[in-house]
Amino acid sequence: MKNDDILNQMSNKGPAYTDAKPVPGQDLDAAVLTSFKSIVAARRSIRIFDGVALPEKTMESILADTTLSPSSSNLQPWEFYWIRDPEKKQAAAEACLGQPAAKTAGDLLALVARPDLWDTNRLKLIDIMTQGGKAELPKPVNIYYKKLIPRLMATDPFGVQNLFRRILFSVLGLTKVMVRSPKNKGDHRVWAHTQVALAAQTLMLSIAAHGYDSCPMGGFDEVRMKKILNLPRGAEVTMMMAVGNRKPEGLYGPQIRLPQADVVHKV
Amino acid sequence: MKNDDILNQMSNKGPAYTDAKPVPGQDLDAAVLTSFKSIVAARRSIRIFDGVALPEKTMESILADTTLSPSSSNLQPWEFYWIRDPEKKQAAAEACLGQPAAKTAGDLLALVARPDLWDTNRLKLIDIMTQGGKAELPKPVNIYYKKLIPRLMATDPFGVQNLFRRILFSVLGLTKVMVRSPKNKGDHRVWAHTQVALAAQTLMLSIAAHGYDSCPMGGFDEVRMKKILNLPRGAEVTMMMAVGNRKPEGLYGPQIRLPQADVVHKV
Repeated sequence: MKNDDILNQMSNKGPAYTDAKPVPGQDLDAAVLTSFKSIVAARRSIRIFDGVALPEKTMESILADTTLSPSSSNLQPWEFYWIRDPEKKQAAAEACLGQPAAKTAGDLLALVARPDLWDTNRLKLIDIMTQGGKAELPKPVNIYYKKLIPRLMATDPFGVQNLFRRILFSVLGLTKVMVRSPKNKGDHRVWAHTQVALAAQTLMLSIAAHGYDSCPMGGFDEVRMKKILNLPRGAEVTMMMAVGNRKPEGLYGPQIRLPQADVVHKV
Repeated sequence: MKNDDILNQMSNKGPAYTDAKPVPGQDLDAAVLTSFKSIVAARRSIRIFDGVALPEKTMESILADTTLSPSSSNLQPWEFYWIRDPEKKQAAAEACLGQPAAKTAGDLLALVARPDLWDTNRLKLIDIMTQGGKAELPKPVNIYYKKLIPRLMATDPFGVQNLFRRILFSVLGLTKVMVRSPKNKGDHRVWAHTQVALAAQTLMLSIAAHGYDSCPMGGFDEVRMKKILNLPRGAEVTMMMAVGNRKPEGLYGPQIRLPQADVVHKV
C-alpha cells in the first residue's frame, strides 16, 4: 500500500506563518522509536529508480517535513527546486554527469543554499513575529534580530565587514569567549550549506518514511545547473536529490560504515 | 516511560564493518509515517534542560543512528565528541558563550568536520570493502576509490592541486559537463561541514525519537573549543549539540517558518 491515502487523512498543511506545534516532548513510545530505526535503516542511496514520479501530495508532505528542520538563528537560508518540467529535468540529469540515479529518478530536486538571503529572511521573520509590525518583540528577541544578527552576518563587496569581524574576534578573543565566524566568504558559504544539509537529511528520512527512496548527489556541474534553474549569482547548489521507487538492482551493496570507535569519542 | 527498557529489547549494536541492512524499501505503513511526523514535530530547539544526563545506552543508540547518515562518496568526514568529563563539559558550555542550553544540558556533544581525513577514511573503506586486501573490488568501485577520489580530493600546502582542478574544471567545463568543486580551501570546508550536518539532523531526530530534546548551537568560541577537545589543526567544529530533558520554560516560542511558497519552487 502506498501512503497517499493515509496522507489524505493526516493533517499535512505546510507550516503556517505562526504554527505552534504540539509538544510531545519526552515519553514517546516504543512504536515511534522502532519506526524511526526502520526509517533510518530503509534510507539507502539508491542508484536506479523506476522513473515514476511521486504523487504531488506525497512530495508536498515530504517538503513540509523538510522545512521543519532547524537552522542557525532560524534564518532558513535554503531553497528547494522541484524540477517538474520534463526538459529541465532531463537537462538537470545530464548536468548530474548523466549518473543513473539522476536519469532514472522519478523526481529530481535541487537543494540550494542562499547565504545572500540572510537579511531578506531576517526581515521576513521580524514581520512574521511582529504580525506585520503590529506586535512588539520581547526585548532579547528584538536585540537579537535587529542588532546582533546584522552585526554578525553583514557583508559588503570589499570585505570590510568581514575584516572588521576578523580583527574584533581575534583581539577580543584573546581575553573573552567570543564567536570566531563568519570572517570570510568561506565561512558564509559553510554557514548556508550547513543549514541546507540539515534540511537535506530530514528530506531523505521523510522520503523513506513515505515509502520512497533517495540518492543525494554531490557530483554535478554547478555552472550548468545554475543556468538550468536560473539561479541568481549568490545562490549555490548544496546537493541534488534523486527521488523515486527503487529498482532492486539500484542498491549497489551492503551498508559500510567506519567502526563506531573511530568516529565517536567519549572525552 | 523512558525508552531504555525498549532499547534493551532492540538490536542496537553500532554498525559493524560490513553491516548489510534489511531493505524494507517501499510500502512502509501508516504507523511509521505517523511516527516520523510526530518526531519531526517534537524536535524543537530547547534552551533550558533539567541537567540530567541520558543513560549511556540511550546515547549509544542515538549515535548508532547518527552514523548511518549518508555522506559524499561514503567518506564520513565526521567525528562526534561526547563530552562526559564534568570539567571539560563545563568548559565547553562556557565556550558556547555560556548560553543556557549548553549550561543546563544533560549531555553536550561536539560535531566535528574532518576535511583532512578524506584519505585516511578512503583507505579504511578500501580495507573494509576488500576485507583487509583479501577480496577484489568490482572494477568501477576500484577505479572510483583508488583513482577518482584522490584526483578530486587531494590537496597540498601550496594549493597546486586545487589550482590544477580549477583550470581543468574551467577549461573542460566550457564544452563538457564537469564537476566544479573542490577548487579552493572553502570548497573542502563546505564539503566536510555539509556531511557533518547531514549526520547532525539524524542526531536531532534520533534524540526526539528516543524521547529527549536537543539544541543545535552555532554560537561558540571555536578556538577555545578546539583546545578543550584537543582537536588537531585540520578539524573544524560544525556545531555543538545540547541534549537532555526539556524544562517546560525551555521552549521559547511557537515554531516559525517562512511561507512554504518562499522556499519551495516548482520549476
